[in-house]
Amino acid sequence: MSIDRRKLLGISAAGLAGVALTDALARAAEAIGKNKPSLEDAQRQGTQAHEALMAVPGMHMHGSEQVALLLYPGFTALDLIGPHFFLASMMGATVHLVAAQREPVLSDVGVAMLPTARFDEVPEKLDVLLVPGGAEGTVAAARDAATLAFVKSRGANARYVASVCTGAVILGAAGLLAGRRATSHWGVREALADFGAKPVDQRVVLDGKLVTGAGVSAGLDLGLALIGLLRGKPFAEAVQLMAEYAPAPAYHAGTPGSAPRAIEQSVRGMFAPLLVETRALAAGT
Amino acid sequence: MSIDRRKLLGISAAGLAGVALTDALARAAEAIGKNKPSLEDAQRQGTQAHEALMAVPGMHMHGSEQVALLLYPGFTALDLIGPHFFLASMMGATVHLVAAQREPVLSDVGVAMLPTARFDEVPEKLDVLLVPGGAEGTVAAARDAATLAFVKSRGANARYVASVCTGAVILGAAGLLAGRRATSHWGVREALADFGAKPVDQRVVLDGKLVTGAGVSAGLDLGLALIGLLRGKPFAEAVQLMAEYAPAPAYHAGTPGSAPRAIEQSVRGMFAPLLVETRALAAGT
Repeated sequence: MSIDRRKLLGISAAGLAGVALTDALARAAEAIGKNKPSLEDAQRQGTQAHEALMAVPGMHMHGSEQVALLLYPGFTALDLIGPHFFLASMMGATVHLVAAQREPVLSDVGVAMLPTARFDEVPEKLDVLLVPGGAEGTVAAARDAATLAFVKSRGANARYVASVCTGAVILGAAGLLAGRRATSHWGVREALADFGAKPVDQRVVLDGKLVTGAGVSAGLDLGLALIGLLRGKPFAEAVQLMAEYAPAPAYHAGTPGSAPRAIEQSVRGMFAPLLVETRALAAGT
Repeated sequence: MSIDRRKLLGISAAGLAGVALTDALARAAEAIGKNKPSLEDAQRQGTQAHEALMAVPGMHMHGSEQVALLLYPGFTALDLIGPHFFLASMMGATVHLVAAQREPVLSDVGVAMLPTARFDEVPEKLDVLLVPGGAEGTVAAARDAATLAFVKSRGANARYVASVCTGAVILGAAGLLAGRRATSHWGVREALADFGAKPVDQRVVLDGKLVTGAGVSAGLDLGLALIGLLRGKPFAEAVQLMAEYAPAPAYHAGTPGSAPRAIEQSVRGMFAPLLVETRALAAGT
């Protein structure tokens, strides 16, 4: 879904006024009921359906948010692309993938993505600044002066500052967690206290303008929550339906409490070096 | 997580034999209990924990799978990156992002990713061929001769052929759905019948070597299921825990049945053009 996601969601605000919800829905339903509609019929249905969606009470279909997602070497691609799906569904919003340079940025497992903007090319005033996590690369980014300066300055001015997974560590290094409730990947969550935060074991934590997500896959929940904050519940529900976001994992080991103990103990131990590096960062050493 | 995900998961198979599970776990737990371990201590904990994880009964930590994920203009990034996270966590596996050319490929909302291989550069015999969805771009890819030839030939030889969302349409055009149970994004699912498949309303559908996922976000469930098929349940559980995949959406509108009716009807109508284009493709027109 999505050049169309945008095109369909955006089909033009013209013609909105005067379209009765029930009327448009009835037409769309009737058209869908047809067995072999022509493409022209279908496009008319699509336009009517779009207008019907815009007429749903409380629907905020259009906006002009400025959103920036940080790319840095070693980021985890799913931490970024999970929330990106939801944020990029906001018709009228501008979503930047921002990095120090315009060159491709390699993720932790070698997925190369191209930034759309350099640090100095995104607006001073952002609606959302979002920082994905990673492992060694995240600690390195949190120690990088240019990255930290960008996160500090845009974070101070942003309407919402968000992180997924260990991205919270970068926010912590930028001083954006002090005194706030926050979460991160379970393997390093306790270290958020070293940055002055109150660690919370929750999927998505909202405290003032700070929105933090748990590990990796929590980026989808964070993205959905963010568009709910920015555009309201009906819009978030529409995008959730487009994403068919009704998760059903085949296994049930997604949290330390639910995973088999031998697996949990081992994976926890594997996080020990990252935890130590995070604490050293917080301690300024 | 993940240059480390790999490094940690892979820390070397050496020294595995002879490490008693209980011993390694006890050491890791003891080390974690310490208040301020040095980085060296922590790295030793990490190594021990890795060995303990490898010693979990039924754990298949290493392999040599060849995996290819298709990039094409207009693909939906989350359809690709969701399963990619899980597949790229398989230590020893090679995960290709394959496209017609090595140039950056633009997603439906303008995320540019770099392929790691051209069609002629991936092995004839793949363990997994995975095709993400999209909208107009997906129909265009399904009509592109080179793309179709690649999917047909590698699909015929692959151990598993997988799709996320409308990626199933490309598999259908390549003749890989005929006679099989399959799913796709709910908005086009019924059209799978036009390719000779039996559409199934299920998050992930396994039929022989065909593994299809529902819309967009179902790629995470599909990826998790796939690594379970390839590496077994304990490995899948370990990666699920690393991904903290215990989803908790803030809204409950992820399926046509759970979304508010006005939203469901409208979004369904917006899929009408894609449905018609998909059916025209299946009809060979």
